[in-house]
Amino acid sequence: MAEASAKKKRKIKPAPPQPVSGFFDTQIDYPNFGFEITHEDEKSGARIGKLTTPHGTIETPNYIFCGTKASIKNLSPYQMKEAKTDIILANTYHLMIQPGADLIEKMGGLHKFTGWNGPMLTDSGGFQVFSMGNGSCADEIKGRNRNQRENLLKINEDGAYFRSYLDGQKLCLNPEISMEIQRKLGADLIVQMDECTSYQVTKEYTAKSMEMSKRWGDRSLLAFKQTHDGKQAMYGVVQGGVYEDLRIESAKYVASRPFFGTAIGGCLGGSDEEMYGILAFTRPHLPNDRPVHFLGIGRIKDIFKSVRHGVDTFDCVMPTRIARHGMALMKGRRDERINLLNAKYRDDPTPLDETLDLPSSRDFSKAYIHHLLKAGELLAYQILSQHNVAIINRLMREVRAAIKAGTLDSLEKEYLPD
Amino acid sequence: MAEASAKKKRKIKPAPPQPVSGFFDTQIDYPNFGFEITHEDEKSGARIGKLTTPHGTIETPNYIFCGTKASIKNLSPYQMKEAKTDIILANTYHLMIQPGADLIEKMGGLHKFTGWNGPMLTDSGGFQVFSMGNGSCADEIKGRNRNQRENLLKINEDGAYFRSYLDGQKLCLNPEISMEIQRKLGADLIVQMDECTSYQVTKEYTAKSMEMSKRWGDRSLLAFKQTHDGKQAMYGVVQGGVYEDLRIESAKYVASRPFFGTAIGGCLGGSDEEMYGILAFTRPHLPNDRPVHFLGIGRIKDIFKSVRHGVDTFDCVMPTRIARHGMALMKGRRDERINLLNAKYRDDPTPLDETLDLPSSRDFSKAYIHHLLKAGELLAYQILSQHNVAIINRLMREVRAAIKAGTLDSLEKEYLPD
Repeated sequence: MAEASAKKKRKIKPAPPQPVSGFFDTQIDYPNFGFEITHEDEKSGARIGKLTTPHGTIETPNYIFCGTKASIKNLSPYQMKEAKTDIILANTYHLMIQPGADLIEKMGGLHKFTGWNGPMLTDSGGFQVFSMGNGSCADEIKGRNRNQRENLLKINEDGAYFRSYLDGQKLCLNPEISMEIQRKLGADLIVQMDECTSYQVTKEYTAKSMEMSKRWGDRSLLAFKQTHDGKQAMYGVVQGGVYEDLRIESAKYVASRPFFGTAIGGCLGGSDEEMYGILAFTRPHLPNDRPVHFLGIGRIKDIFKSVRHGVDTFDCVMPTRIARHGMALMKGRRDERINLLNAKYRDDPTPLDETLDLPSSRDFSKAYIHHLLKAGELLAYQILSQHNVAIINRLMREVRAAIKAGTLDSLEKEYLPD
Repeated sequence: MAEASAKKKRKIKPAPPQPVSGFFDTQIDYPNFGFEITHEDEKSGARIGKLTTPHGTIETPNYIFCGTKASIKNLSPYQMKEAKTDIILANTYHLMIQPGADLIEKMGGLHKFTGWNGPMLTDSGGFQVFSMGNGSCADEIKGRNRNQRENLLKINEDGAYFRSYLDGQKLCLNPEISMEIQRKLGADLIVQMDECTSYQVTKEYTAKSMEMSKRWGDRSLLAFKQTHDGKQAMYGVVQGGVYEDLRIESAKYVASRPFFGTAIGGCLGGSDEEMYGILAFTRPHLPNDRPVHFLGIGRIKDIFKSVRHGVDTFDCVMPTRIARHGMALMKGRRDERINLLNAKYRDDPTPLDETLDLPSSRDFSKAYIHHLLKAGELLAYQILSQHNVAIINRLMREVRAAIKAGTLDSLEKEYLPD
């Protein structure tokens, strides 16, 4: 009930925007966090790092698995650990609506609530506010046009007004609210509030929006600092759409502010080439001593491309989402995956990948998984989800080893043969 | 394709009934099986046994969990073992339709196909043929009237003709076909083909049906013997509905034939009292040196009642089915369960049962499970299913210990307080 009335209050009177001075003089320390580059491969441009949080240190490059509603789909924290997972995330947008940040704070925060005791990230919530009405989040990043924004009511300098996906209630998200919610959720790594622009908007809109995201970044930092107790560290987000000058401007802003890390967000164009192009012209303007996260990106080919630009972490729902469509990630296929619903697996006695030290990958035949999928048995999704997570985690281990050994090219050919 | 044409052949020309002589002189040995009574509690009437199969020995009384379509819903064999499961079953009816017995035989049988390496039972398929058109199987046993039999086309002396739940194809199941399919599936314990009569039929019909089930029992034994290689052992089924004279007649038949075990099947009346009454007048006529299975029965109160009549094994979909409705079995509640969807669990920080050595029971708060259920997260069903299986397995361990100690009454009060 406390949660419901808190929402109601916000709807009626959202927190007013805070003034931001022209010169930003706030300093923020992150005493319990660290990022150390331990190896750089001049040939490939890739790097190895150590990212330290209050819930542990992970090696980078690494992959942050999406536990949207405080749960990786059909996998327990134990199954995530068994698949050698280092770090996960949860989505502020979904959790502010259900079960609500106050409830999660009351239950001791996301780590205690979910049973995941490793490093964790939450996003600002902004991305989903701007994209949930537009088909899928992937559509938004990749520039596919399904723009309806039906749940998004209004964006202005203060923040975004939108309807709850659950009950249609009007809600508001702005930098101060996002920081408050993320503080209550209690993840280690949090993200500034920004506007995520669509592929369909003009350069003029993108420029204005990017400028507003800068001001929202400052408001996020100020709000964060007010309650900062050393348990969380914040990422700034680089926006600017597909436009080089705007991306550079946004990158310079993020670099000038005391963010702990840098996330590359927003619209990344309509093709892989455009996305990698944006990464190429943006990345040189990001501070090298901060971890770089690529928001919402994480196919196998994206990882090989992006680590060469010094990207340190990735996140994508892909591994668990494609599992729910019967697909298993595979090492050594150009298309990265197989569809277990395909009739050719009906009597295939081989496991998904016997070289993975994991029952889900090693101990069930493709024929059995095919049967489970045909029969609508939930076990299929559990097996495929855990396998896909394990495949990605091994990929990241092998990518790190290849960066150290200078063998990234040959590893890429192993994963993605011509 | 071979499977499809095999089905087609059956549809056109089912195996003809085999003649059964008045005096049944077939003997069957079960060299790799055994059942030994290790303790009898004169006070309660309950007993402890050791049931040996080619895939291991289990102590009885025990609970056989339902893996209907060759999978316990949303639980892997590892998760079943982690919940200390001894024995599972799969359903012939579902598997003959999908993926087909030939496919499972080709994949090495159910044990290899599913990865479950412990004792396993399959039923004859008859029960589902006769009940799938009648609402749920539970309706059928408990005499609730939803009788439509819409998928059942014809029953005659030869067998049952019915439509596939999958594609409407006409199929036939008779004793010879059931034995062939169960041999291909390869479970340790198999069940004779019988007709399961409904609560709605007359005594006259029940009597005629029971007589036919006797003849089907003989045909099952003859068909079984033809390919018997010591890897399987067969249960006869006692029918006779709610009628004492018919139950006794059926029990005497089963006792007179070389079945390995005895299953009590069919309609068990319209109330718990009627069911326990049927058990009370039937059980004295069953051979004491054979294991006694109570088909489809398995609430906590049923177990306490039935072990006192010398029932050795139970099976019921209840533990995993109620999990999918958000319910957790609990020790110490008259109604045996709680509904995690209830709003009072929204902020309940306590686990389901911290005394169970199982993460699902011990490490997640009721608040988290409540959230997962509200959010439609599949992890909820995994957690609840494994917890419910673990609760039943602990119950069976404690029941066995109580029978040995002569403390069954006090254990029952612990589980089911007034």
